[in-house]
Amino acid sequence: MTPSRWIPLIGWLHGYRRDTLARDLLAAVIVTLMLVPQALAYALLAGLPPEVGLYASMLPLVFYAVFGTSATLAVGPVAVASLMTAAALSGIAAPGSAEYVGAALVLAALSGLLLVAMGLLRLGFLANFLSHPVISGFVTASGILIAASQLRHLLGVKAAGDNLVEMVMSLVASLGQVSLITLGIGLGVWGFLLWCRRRLKGILHRLGLPATAADLVAKAAPVSAVIVTTLLAWSLGLGARGVALVGEVPSGLPSLALPNLDPGLWTSLAPAAVLISLVGFVESVSVAQTLAAKRRQRIDPNRELIALGLANLGAGASGGSPVSGGFSRSVVNFEAGAATPLAGAFTALGIALATLTLTTPLAFLPKATLAATIIVAVGTLIDLPAIKRTWAYSRADGVAMLATLALTLLQGVESGILAGVALSLGLHLYRTSRPHSAVVGRVPGSEHFRNVKRHEVETDEHLAILRVDESLYFANARYLEDTVMALASRQPDLKHIVLACQAVNVIDASALESLEAINGRLKDSGVCLHLAEVKGPVMDHLKGTHLIKALTGRVFLSTFDAWHVLHGDAAGVLHAPGEAPDASLKQGVGP
Amino acid sequence: MTPSRWIPLIGWLHGYRRDTLARDLLAAVIVTLMLVPQALAYALLAGLPPEVGLYASMLPLVFYAVFGTSATLAVGPVAVASLMTAAALSGIAAPGSAEYVGAALVLAALSGLLLVAMGLLRLGFLANFLSHPVISGFVTASGILIAASQLRHLLGVKAAGDNLVEMVMSLVASLGQVSLITLGIGLGVWGFLLWCRRRLKGILHRLGLPATAADLVAKAAPVSAVIVTTLLAWSLGLGARGVALVGEVPSGLPSLALPNLDPGLWTSLAPAAVLISLVGFVESVSVAQTLAAKRRQRIDPNRELIALGLANLGAGASGGSPVSGGFSRSVVNFEAGAATPLAGAFTALGIALATLTLTTPLAFLPKATLAATIIVAVGTLIDLPAIKRTWAYSRADGVAMLATLALTLLQGVESGILAGVALSLGLHLYRTSRPHSAVVGRVPGSEHFRNVKRHEVETDEHLAILRVDESLYFANARYLEDTVMALASRQPDLKHIVLACQAVNVIDASALESLEAINGRLKDSGVCLHLAEVKGPVMDHLKGTHLIKALTGRVFLSTFDAWHVLHGDAAGVLHAPGEAPDASLKQGVGP
Repeated sequence: MTPSRWIPLIGWLHGYRRDTLARDLLAAVIVTLMLVPQALAYALLAGLPPEVGLYASMLPLVFYAVFGTSATLAVGPVAVASLMTAAALSGIAAPGSAEYVGAALVLAALSGLLLVAMGLLRLGFLANFLSHPVISGFVTASGILIAASQLRHLLGVKAAGDNLVEMVMSLVASLGQVSLITLGIGLGVWGFLLWCRRRLKGILHRLGLPATAADLVAKAAPVSAVIVTTLLAWSLGLGARGVALVGEVPSGLPSLALPNLDPGLWTSLAPAAVLISLVGFVESVSVAQTLAAKRRQRIDPNRELIALGLANLGAGASGGSPVSGGFSRSVVNFEAGAATPLAGAFTALGIALATLTLTTPLAFLPKATLAATIIVAVGTLIDLPAIKRTWAYSRADGVAMLATLALTLLQGVESGILAGVALSLGLHLYRTSRPHSAVVGRVPGSEHFRNVKRHEVETDEHLAILRVDESLYFANARYLEDTVMALASRQPDLKHIVLACQAVNVIDASALESLEAINGRLKDSGVCLHLAEVKGPVMDHLKGTHLIKALTGRVFLSTFDAWHVLHGDAAGVLHAPGEAPDASLKQGVGP
Repeated sequence: MTPSRWIPLIGWLHGYRRDTLARDLLAAVIVTLMLVPQALAYALLAGLPPEVGLYASMLPLVFYAVFGTSATLAVGPVAVASLMTAAALSGIAAPGSAEYVGAALVLAALSGLLLVAMGLLRLGFLANFLSHPVISGFVTASGILIAASQLRHLLGVKAAGDNLVEMVMSLVASLGQVSLITLGIGLGVWGFLLWCRRRLKGILHRLGLPATAADLVAKAAPVSAVIVTTLLAWSLGLGARGVALVGEVPSGLPSLALPNLDPGLWTSLAPAAVLISLVGFVESVSVAQTLAAKRRQRIDPNRELIALGLANLGAGASGGSPVSGGFSRSVVNFEAGAATPLAGAFTALGIALATLTLTTPLAFLPKATLAATIIVAVGTLIDLPAIKRTWAYSRADGVAMLATLALTLLQGVESGILAGVALSLGLHLYRTSRPHSAVVGRVPGSEHFRNVKRHEVETDEHLAILRVDESLYFANARYLEDTVMALASRQPDLKHIVLACQAVNVIDASALESLEAINGRLKDSGVCLHLAEVKGPVMDHLKGTHLIKALTGRVFLSTFDAWHVLHGDAAGVLHAPGEAPDASLKQGVGP
């Protein structure tokens, strides 16, 4: 329990040298250029005033620098969390109102508390409820929803809607009010950004820039669209000609304050906070692990929970919306050479400088520029081929993914992700509730046993050996009862059933009860139940249970032992509980 | 798809003979004697007028006789379903009001529709969500709640409460108004019933009755308490002396009618109907399977869903509350010799006769008699030793059981069971999210590989072999990433990681994505990923996936093959995707 375990900064700061400083500063400059428009854009997406995005890009980054375990994860406002924030707040207050902003801070603080609590209680495994197909379907749907929600800024119309159908209907209905200048700016920026993304790097490289530098310049290029359109709007007075501008941004740093502590508000935001926390955590850890592996570094998921939680608490206390690790920003940070989390702290400094000096010009920034920035950024979220890939690999996973995608688009983010989680749990239970099992027989002359349906094997009308290829737990306990009792009623001369347990890693209390019930029912029908090849850890648990005491048969070391002893035994003597005819075999346990 | 598959009655009716008829009739008489007081008592427990219990004991039994697959399951109103009905309706209307009764019918019809739908869609596996510890904790808590709720009738006081604490507080506050005559009747009946249960069988047996007959007479004896206390109340005019009586019961058979079709009511009752259906189904199937096994018969869970569903639809259409299979009643039915489901139809006839002829005397039946009947009956539900047993076997299952028990007692039936389900799912995910895994090394001179922490084995600083003892799916996909990347960062000279997959029964889409991510990240750190001992069905799925195309290493038939090829290979050549150095090994698949 050294301090550096809780505050990783202590661990790496004393090895900090001038060349590390240089690398971190360079990365910070590039990320700052990228983050200023994104912070404004994601605030717009969340229905918040632009400064909220800037505030979410200061203190949270400093907190993450102190407590985070990833050297390169760039924390701040991100697209998906902003969409989820907008969805969570839509029923609470009118977008942009003081009440709405207050609720956003509560959402950040609540997410922060949840993440810290999960980290301290080591509950990171809860993120496992979000299976990959669900996350993937959700992120793709979010990307589509985000792009659709920004079209109105691109067209310069008033449109709204909580789901894709409503958004499209509302956009179509408002096509008469399109502002052509706005559309021109939006399409121009969109085209420029796509050109930067697809061509600029190659052009700069051919002009003699090294590949990495060309890439970084291409990544930072969007800032020039911001500068150019701001200058245009200012010099041509576009605000008066129907082009929506960002408007006044308060200059100066955020003040620290406790968020609204109204318990009713906290309760109503709690479900959304849980989802935002989990989705943000899963995405952040995934990005951080991918980047850490490239340098053979390690990140610690439980420490990450705490660091992300403190970053969100920082956001809630300093006027910011919920934050998490952003994918493209982290990649830029990594490629720009960020060596330590201090790069993030320097980025926060850059954003603070921008907030102190650039608010006057930023007021002239057209919203259409930001909308185009968002639309191009979320293009990386939409992964339609993944649907086909997942469907081809597994129907169940494909169904979970499609359901999440469709419900997110049509019913909103919370319904979509909850339905996906419920469906993937249900499908998992369904899959494991009917595990692969086989009645096996002896391969003649050998000690091997194979499926009677697939191989020519010896069987015995008095003896049935059932192999179950799954751990026995509550989801398949009843299936086991059905399978064994069906076996017993199919074979009228049956005297012995052997359960071959080589694939059984766990037997939980439900399965134990089922085995006891099976044992009792078989006894009533005059059939002995035996176990074979029970793994050591499983047998350790079973010892001393009522099942082993009441077992009408024995526990055999191997299936062959069972065959050897029981083959040809038509008598089917039922041994009284505890009275094992061969104590050494009864106690025999697999290696 | 023969008619007898859908209507089991057709299958067994043509073999029906006179001796079968005699057995079924005897069983029906005994079950009717037991069911009349229970039907009234469970109506009282559910807050319903007494006739609702009688109506629930007619048409549902006929429907089950036609569609059920168990010869001996006795369907009708039961204690737990009545408690759940009372809990579901408590927020809807005042107990006993016409609106309350109407809602009870809707609850029965809704449960019936759900059960039929689950049967047709083969969704019986959903009952697996209710793990054994959850059911067991829930049933014990229900028994305690039911007994506590009946104390007020025994004491003759007005008390109420939605949970144990409220009930006890309310009882204590009302102790001043205890009706001593009521208490005398209640305690007298209670004592008599306990005496019947514990002693009567032995006494009758010693008097010369055969053991089975003595048992059945002892089981039917409660009806004499009903007769005696009814006569007492009538002859002594106890109703005027403060003893609460059942009161007027409408004579005649129920009329058929559609239940209230108000969508708002249906929606608000839907969650309760889901729980009542699932709990009733689980309990019914468990009883039916236990009894069927004693005669080497089979029941079909999906047919049972449909039969229980139609029984509940019958209840909803004929003025009855939700029904399911009762444990003690089914055992009596079995022991009395019921040979076919027709015994249930004859019981329905018996109840119809009672409803036509006995309603005038039943009006004088003291409620205290019914309360004592209920309290003695639910004694069999309360299984406190199961808590200790489950706790000793598995902490996780013990926690799920205790949480269900405590929350049911303190928060009510719905919260209790939902919390139990959530907790057992969470604990299952937690358990499988950190599966047992081991870095293995070679037992010198052999082809066996064992845990390096437990055995003296050969290892190689360039090679690590990891064995995971669990299927790979969304719950442990991230743990796998953590484990493998931790392994890679611990061993700086590592060139090869082999995943030994002999215990992996499934790799789902989440685990596939994780393996792809692991492969990519290991590649970035200069380590090759290999697979070994992949099972046939798992490999069938993996073929053609991006993982196998991009895999930096190979797929080995056995762990020893992997060791043999990779041992001593410090070069760690990264093979380009698809370029397997030894195609035969790359395609090699385990048996």
